Amino acid sequence: MDVEELGQHISRSFNENLEKVRNSVLAMGGLVEQQLTLAIEALENADSELGLRVAHNDYKVNEMEVSIDEECSRILATRAPAAGDLRLIIAIIKTITDLERMGDEAERIGALAARLASQERPSTNYREVRNLARHVKQMLHSTLDVFARLDAEGALEVVKSDDTVDEEYEAIYRQCITFMMEDPRTITRVMDSTWIARSLERIGDHSKNICEYVIFMVYGKDIRYTGLGDIDQKVERAAERSSGHL
Amino acid sequence: MDVEELGQHISRSFNENLEKVRNSVLAMGGLVEQQLTLAIEALENADSELGLRVAHNDYKVNEMEVSIDEECSRILATRAPAAGDLRLIIAIIKTITDLERMGDEAERIGALAARLASQERPSTNYREVRNLARHVKQMLHSTLDVFARLDAEGALEVVKSDDTVDEEYEAIYRQCITFMMEDPRTITRVMDSTWIARSLERIGDHSKNICEYVIFMVYGKDIRYTGLGDIDQKVERAAERSSGHL
Repeated sequence: MDVEELGQHISRSFNENLEKVRNSVLAMGGLVEQQLTLAIEALENADSELGLRVAHNDYKVNEMEVSIDEECSRILATRAPAAGDLRLIIAIIKTITDLERMGDEAERIGALAARLASQERPSTNYREVRNLARHVKQMLHSTLDVFARLDAEGALEVVKSDDTVDEEYEAIYRQCITFMMEDPRTITRVMDSTWIARSLERIGDHSKNICEYVIFMVYGKDIRYTGLGDIDQKVERAAERSSGHL
Repeated sequence: MDVEELGQHISRSFNENLEKVRNSVLAMGGLVEQQLTLAIEALENADSELGLRVAHNDYKVNEMEVSIDEECSRILATRAPAAGDLRLIIAIIKTITDLERMGDEAERIGALAARLASQERPSTNYREVRNLARHVKQMLHSTLDVFARLDAEGALEVVKSDDTVDEEYEAIYRQCITFMMEDPRTITRVMDSTWIARSLERIGDHSKNICEYVIFMVYGKDIRYTGLGDIDQKVERAAERSSGHL
């Protein structure tokens, strides 16, 4: 093998490494999605066993985080990636932290759903919370999608949609306060469903974080803590500047 | 300058870089500590102006995170650090994410304290919440201390102390439910103080996370998601193995 061939070989095996770790992130995201889906199913069907199973299975999400983390460290140590590849690895290290914390929230929802299963059901069977869950699940799904496609514009759309999730959460919260004031005997139960709504709202926040890392990965621009109008402009400008490099 | 001198020069300037970024993390931690202290002061003294100022000043914490993040990327890209240095950088990238989220919680506490300032005070003036705050502040202070000294054993102590914070939080939560049931007119106010307690509990969780990164930095062992008994053994074994290298 001559030097050029060797170089190509190293670079191919490097790309395979990066591809493998990206796929692992998507697999981890898929598992978190599934945990969330099952946790909400447990709430809807008052299925305490399913809720507990979700809570129990969170360790699988944690294991994936540790394994991807180690893989990233190995790549950094042995390959010393630069520019876009380095940004990818840094974004992955951050992304899996957010995915792991989403997993924790799904675990909480599962445990709360299990507790609520044995209690009296509200006439709506938690319709508002389930609606919020549907939006948050959609948000997580889109997040994994823009991560897979490195789609910064799609990521920006997801970032924006977090406002709707926040508003929906606040409406549920106000409604919960009203329920509790009207009938204090429901306080414990209503508080549990408030926590579920809160966990869903957090999952939305984590999705938003990941989408911000995607934008950083693609453009090398840190858009966290920037007003949305500014972000729009920045993405546009960065897109103009780097349109030749994508 | 001969090659050896040049080598020493590069390595000295690399160490200076690492030292600088470590100090920035400590400065960021100090700012978060201060934000938390002022937010609790706002609660204690019903000082709505101070609460709002804390909420407003969170952008400073965010700015520090972005700047340290960029510095870490620069070091990774230009120095390709290995082994312990690489672990330090990875741990810092994770640590500042947790510090930033603690800053968000302090911001929330400030805003809630401002809202509570205009309302009737409970006879205890939120004593239980302030006690919890004192413990959490102590935990954060110790965390910054073990980070500064790269003290894995101290870090393990902080990790363990999180259980006490969790128990204290749960006691406050149960008490809040009782208050609300006894006097539903207080529900809005009591809910706000529950959120403050929850934010404090979260700050405790973030401290614990950072201490786990410190242990990882020192021993190269990932102890997340390991039972505390196991961690004790691991730290002991890792300490035995690496005692010559510290």
